[in-house]
Amino acid sequence: MKIENEPKLISPIQDFLEHLHQQCAANDDGDVATYIPELAKADPSWFGICIVTANGAVYEVGDTRQDFTIQSISKPFVYGLALEDNGRAATLERVGVEPTGDAFNSISLDPGTGRPRNPMINAGAIATAGLIAGKTPASRFKRILETFSLYAGRPLKVDHTVYLSESETGHRNRAIGHMLRNFDKLTGDPAPTTEIYFQQCSISVNCRDLGIMAATLANHGVNPLTGKQALRGEYVESVLSVMGTCGMYDYAGEWLYHVGIPAKSGVSGGVLAVLPGQLGIGVFSPRLDAHGNSVRGIRVCQELSRHLDLHLFNRPVAGKSTIRLRFTGADFNSSHVRTPEESRTLRELAKAINVYQLQGHLAFATMEPVVRDILEQAEATTYLILDLKRVLSLNESAGHLLHSLVGKLHGLEKTVLFTHSDHLPLLRRMMKKKLAGKYAELFTTFPDNDLALEWCEERLLENTRYARAANFRAKPADYLLFNNFSRGELELIQPLLQPRSFKRGQNIISAGTDAQEVFFLARGSVSVFLPGEGGRRLATFSPGMSFGEMAFIDGARRSADIVADTEVECHLLTLEDFQKFGKTHPALKIKLLEQLCLDLTGKLRKANRELTVFE
Amino acid sequence: MKIENEPKLISPIQDFLEHLHQQCAANDDGDVATYIPELAKADPSWFGICIVTANGAVYEVGDTRQDFTIQSISKPFVYGLALEDNGRAATLERVGVEPTGDAFNSISLDPGTGRPRNPMINAGAIATAGLIAGKTPASRFKRILETFSLYAGRPLKVDHTVYLSESETGHRNRAIGHMLRNFDKLTGDPAPTTEIYFQQCSISVNCRDLGIMAATLANHGVNPLTGKQALRGEYVESVLSVMGTCGMYDYAGEWLYHVGIPAKSGVSGGVLAVLPGQLGIGVFSPRLDAHGNSVRGIRVCQELSRHLDLHLFNRPVAGKSTIRLRFTGADFNSSHVRTPEESRTLRELAKAINVYQLQGHLAFATMEPVVRDILEQAEATTYLILDLKRVLSLNESAGHLLHSLVGKLHGLEKTVLFTHSDHLPLLRRMMKKKLAGKYAELFTTFPDNDLALEWCEERLLENTRYARAANFRAKPADYLLFNNFSRGELELIQPLLQPRSFKRGQNIISAGTDAQEVFFLARGSVSVFLPGEGGRRLATFSPGMSFGEMAFIDGARRSADIVADTEVECHLLTLEDFQKFGKTHPALKIKLLEQLCLDLTGKLRKANRELTVFE
Repeated sequence: MKIENEPKLISPIQDFLEHLHQQCAANDDGDVATYIPELAKADPSWFGICIVTANGAVYEVGDTRQDFTIQSISKPFVYGLALEDNGRAATLERVGVEPTGDAFNSISLDPGTGRPRNPMINAGAIATAGLIAGKTPASRFKRILETFSLYAGRPLKVDHTVYLSESETGHRNRAIGHMLRNFDKLTGDPAPTTEIYFQQCSISVNCRDLGIMAATLANHGVNPLTGKQALRGEYVESVLSVMGTCGMYDYAGEWLYHVGIPAKSGVSGGVLAVLPGQLGIGVFSPRLDAHGNSVRGIRVCQELSRHLDLHLFNRPVAGKSTIRLRFTGADFNSSHVRTPEESRTLRELAKAINVYQLQGHLAFATMEPVVRDILEQAEATTYLILDLKRVLSLNESAGHLLHSLVGKLHGLEKTVLFTHSDHLPLLRRMMKKKLAGKYAELFTTFPDNDLALEWCEERLLENTRYARAANFRAKPADYLLFNNFSRGELELIQPLLQPRSFKRGQNIISAGTDAQEVFFLARGSVSVFLPGEGGRRLATFSPGMSFGEMAFIDGARRSADIVADTEVECHLLTLEDFQKFGKTHPALKIKLLEQLCLDLTGKLRKANRELTVFE
Repeated sequence: MKIENEPKLISPIQDFLEHLHQQCAANDDGDVATYIPELAKADPSWFGICIVTANGAVYEVGDTRQDFTIQSISKPFVYGLALEDNGRAATLERVGVEPTGDAFNSISLDPGTGRPRNPMINAGAIATAGLIAGKTPASRFKRILETFSLYAGRPLKVDHTVYLSESETGHRNRAIGHMLRNFDKLTGDPAPTTEIYFQQCSISVNCRDLGIMAATLANHGVNPLTGKQALRGEYVESVLSVMGTCGMYDYAGEWLYHVGIPAKSGVSGGVLAVLPGQLGIGVFSPRLDAHGNSVRGIRVCQELSRHLDLHLFNRPVAGKSTIRLRFTGADFNSSHVRTPEESRTLRELAKAINVYQLQGHLAFATMEPVVRDILEQAEATTYLILDLKRVLSLNESAGHLLHSLVGKLHGLEKTVLFTHSDHLPLLRRMMKKKLAGKYAELFTTFPDNDLALEWCEERLLENTRYARAANFRAKPADYLLFNNFSRGELELIQPLLQPRSFKRGQNIISAGTDAQEVFFLARGSVSVFLPGEGGRRLATFSPGMSFGEMAFIDGARRSADIVADTEVECHLLTLEDFQKFGKTHPALKIKLLEQLCLDLTGKLRKANRELTVFE
């Protein structure tokens, strides 16, 4: 973390971890494992804690870079690879998923089938190692090592001395291998598989690796630091399930009860815990309790669970915040500037446009209140705009609900429009697939709300008396700024209006230039854009309206680009002519300024009204 | 649900449930329990499904109003009451929490201690019933029945015939009672406790009740339909933990693996499943499999889990969406209207005001990215405004982080301000307690962002040359609208300016009245409020500024109330005088209108800029 280099700005999370480390370091209970000589060499005072969030922030304290062998913590990761290689059904035929309540080295084969009860006991782990694909034992183990390296985000190696020690003393595990072969839960010679198992236990990691490996499981199998996939997302829940019920040997029930985070421990003193979607925890301290779990490791996880409220079964109530904002087209218009009559009409009609800004993760529980709300509002809705800009993810369940909703509302002659949906390819796939044939066109998307709102407004105005022909041409008498000019007065100013025409796509005003004139639009349509490629549209004008008057008034440089949307005809009035005209016809200048004030006041009232939508 | 009455608007969720019901109804596997004669009378075709969200939406299909006895599904609810009566430690002394992998009627006492392995097997449930407080067996059972009624949201009753049948045939359970007494896991005569156990199993419920009871656990122990607390929130995770590891008899491991939702089944055919924070599921179908679980009940839960993506270990990544919006005081000002010089100064200085709008549930994983972002921005920040308006909940862990952050930033001479924090009493409690003594004043709160922004702006302006004395008095020459008037011109208009003074708190303009004048503020401060009690502040003006000009221009009625914040002196100019003046001094009217256009243009530019903050 960058902030480590700025002593004044140490994160309170770092402070908390250091305090916790200090507190738990005082506990000297338990003993280092001695069942193989190499493990007995560990320094009992080693102690590291590492937390890694599913977004990839790493917090670590103590001996987090001290190497040790992964031991039983290898089991869930190899189980994940076995699932990828064989699928769930074939894997379950070889190894069960029931907790035993027995110790780690129990043989625990089902009396009838000879199937090991679960993959976290040695028998199950050896059967799992037998499921890893590969032509030779060496290539099978190579795949395991590569997978572990993906989880850790760095190339891992085997501690060869520990491996030899494991292999030399592993008679009980060899017995298990033969027993599994006897029940056909291993194919061929069990010896190479037992050796693979000894090797996977001897992979050398450090406490930081454990934290990152845990965070990879928390992040749907994707290492949050490297962005690389270590396990297909669909199998993560299965790996976590066996950790949840069988991960802490015969302490699994109490663990879930008191800590409530799927975890796995190893005899070398490591504990790895995963809070799905949130964070991974790695702890390393070699002193073990009678169950074979790290004393400090358990203590740290208990404290973290309690202080950080991590218990998996204590989750806040979902769904209340999926709707970020809801407003109607009457509260907030598109940037298509309307005539006063159109505006008044839309303030009534556009209540039938309902905009929902959704946010967060769309899943069943978060979408249910949205669907309910939409159905409750459906009667008053003609157009439903679903803005997905702030939606972080969408699962199939939410996709099904949205699809059903579109069909249902279509049946009631209501139209659903999606905006900002490009980052959710699953939605498009599901909609296209499920709405195939005559409904294919029902998946209507717009890049942003503004265009969607405009589309709806156009349809609402289409059937009113304000609907104009596409090629409507405004005469100077129609120009809104001359609204209170008499025919005679119009004749006075008309000679100053210089006709101009522009081609579709042509720039009429460029940001940064000096403002020397105001434009009156006679035919076609122009739009105002923020400067720069892909700049946001600020406004669209139609015949009769004027544009460019803001810079004309305050003498500032043009702040936006104005572009012809179509073939455009307009008149311009230069600042110079206007000022001369004002001197000779002050009463008309006053009329014009009054009309301008009126126009600006209207725009300001609208902007202020729209600002309240966001409060 | 209201929508049930509007056939066209059936929720897609209801459609899905009906489809699922139809699909699973085709399965006739399994047999009705016969171990007591009364259960054998059940109609094997009964089949109901009910989903209740943690927000209280109910979806049901099939035989959801058919009564049946709750049987083993009573166990987790009685366990919750035992936890409330005895606390966790004393309860754990009597009953463990380890899964057994054994069948429901196994005795499974720990060889050494005689402690039943968990509260979901009969032995554990009887020991749990022994923990319920009360003077007499009748009053102990009455408390159980009342608690169950709170969960269901309606008064429940015992099915007396079933109870008699249970009691008549319950020899095995009586044997267990005596065995528990032998190990001192029950006190006194075991017989009354065994009878309580028979009664709790005989409580009559329907499938809808199961759904609501499950949703109550999903909603932290509060019935989402009645709002009444059935179980203290702190014990919910413990009840769900034993359901998670031991709830489905010897099928618990596979259940968590395949369905991934804590659940409990009963021999009468009920299944109750709880997705914490999200929803509760109740299913009823009396045909059982060899484990004693409802065949269709399991099938329905599997399908729901798969189609609605409910597996507890498959959660989206948290924390990315906690920051709803971040902006600086330069992007968005308080509604305190500034002079052009002040505005220019603030556009630079106010970059040091950093506003974070937070949203959703504040917990460790959701706050971690916020804390990190704040620390990364800390160098450029002098004032940090944390807007908690859209924060739905805050847990202790988030409270600790916020507290540490305030202290840390204070050490760097930075100020943290909280807005909209009244709905989070835990935050206030934690801040007051932890910041006791010299830091007590560090918990600075404002009712809204506008006031907090204004407070910061005032402090930033304090040290600039634009700082004015509190009693500064503007002369007509200082009035911004007369900005380009010469001294001689000022003398011409000055006679039309009528002095007025107002007391602090007095209404200067009332919404809804006709606009006949524009005001010029000479001394003091006035604020514009939306009409109505507690109306939002729209603007605050200081000496030299004018107000009331918008309605003055467009002739609309006053849209807001304007109130004197202090003793106020001002001038007013009536519409009538202004129009007369315009006729005689058109050049001055033009100057005034030009200045007004300039002022409106400035305000419109600001409003448009502020609108982009929310895009």
